[in-house]
Amino acid sequence: MTPPVAARQDTKTLLLEAGIELMYEKGYTNTGIQEVLQRVGVPKGSFYHYFESKEDFALAIIEQHQRNSRAKIERTLENAELSPITRLRNFCNECKQDLEASNCRKGCLIGNLSQEMADQSERLRSALSGVMARWRDYFSTCIQEGQATGEISQAWPAAKMAELFLCGWEGAIMRSKSSKTPEPMNLFIDLMFNHILIAKSLSMSD
Amino acid sequence: MTPPVAARQDTKTLLLEAGIELMYEKGYTNTGIQEVLQRVGVPKGSFYHYFESKEDFALAIIEQHQRNSRAKIERTLENAELSPITRLRNFCNECKQDLEASNCRKGCLIGNLSQEMADQSERLRSALSGVMARWRDYFSTCIQEGQATGEISQAWPAAKMAELFLCGWEGAIMRSKSSKTPEPMNLFIDLMFNHILIAKSLSMSD
Repeated sequence: MTPPVAARQDTKTLLLEAGIELMYEKGYTNTGIQEVLQRVGVPKGSFYHYFESKEDFALAIIEQHQRNSRAKIERTLENAELSPITRLRNFCNECKQDLEASNCRKGCLIGNLSQEMADQSERLRSALSGVMARWRDYFSTCIQEGQATGEISQAWPAAKMAELFLCGWEGAIMRSKSSKTPEPMNLFIDLMFNHILIAKSLSMSD
Repeated sequence: MTPPVAARQDTKTLLLEAGIELMYEKGYTNTGIQEVLQRVGVPKGSFYHYFESKEDFALAIIEQHQRNSRAKIERTLENAELSPITRLRNFCNECKQDLEASNCRKGCLIGNLSQEMADQSERLRSALSGVMARWRDYFSTCIQEGQATGEISQAWPAAKMAELFLCGWEGAIMRSKSSKTPEPMNLFIDLMFNHILIAKSLSMSD
């Protein structure tokens, strides 16, 4: 007898959430399907009912992680009640709080999987690269809006600044994970929001 | 009979170079000792003559990679014949050429291992974090010198800009690896060297 839709959905979601936790902590290769099954308490057949392979599981994990990130993006980058620079700053601050809460472990799931799997699986590489491009576009929209209102310096092309913002933030998360201090994230936030992005920095300094 | 020092040194170096190649491509976990041995053509006992464990091997790989990077650092970041901003730009350009030559595969060995192993091995984390801190200090020295000569904008504290430079460059390498185009590195180089770092950008724009 097939379990009801709600129960099936729950099992699939539980498998994905356990997979997110484990892959965040240990990466793709170090995460065993057996460990995921044990954590959720379901048999092997259940896993292969939902996912054809570990690679398919990882693709579904990337999608689930994106769904989980929606609320944060709506609260920050898409929050029309806030000014563009405040949206960007709040996004970084929320990410930083999450990292600090885990003592700078884990880092960024998408960044971690990109480093590990971009040369190992074309399907994962393509999915991960797509997620990063969407983040860059969120940042670019905020920067363009801020430039239009005069809040953000027009000295930098928005699309290039968005790419630097993404690269710098991913790098800061990696550096914080590696140094086990939030200092690289703090330095990024200070330099980006108190010096580089704000229009007034250009008239105040140099 | 123990082999002569030169031969022993060669075997150790061959093991390290094979390990660098494999860990660059596949990461720490995915690299098997057996694969390293097969590539060099030596028996298992030989490996454990030089390295106590896979973790020790990885630590020696990080050191060997640093030795291999010395020539590039001397040609670029420490080259007193070049202006500070040219040193930084040449460093990025050399890294970019290496990445492009491998079709944007591999990325940065230190960045890859940091993402993968920072939460798995305290010894590796500490070594990797130390290497990154040294790079940041090289960048900081160049930026300070450029600020002193007036070539680099004084609008940014050198130490913070050096951290952003490191984070942004590591992130750009990761994004290039994930998108399989050099475009993120090109954007970083353009924005950093044609807009942010140069002192004249501040008087020319905004």
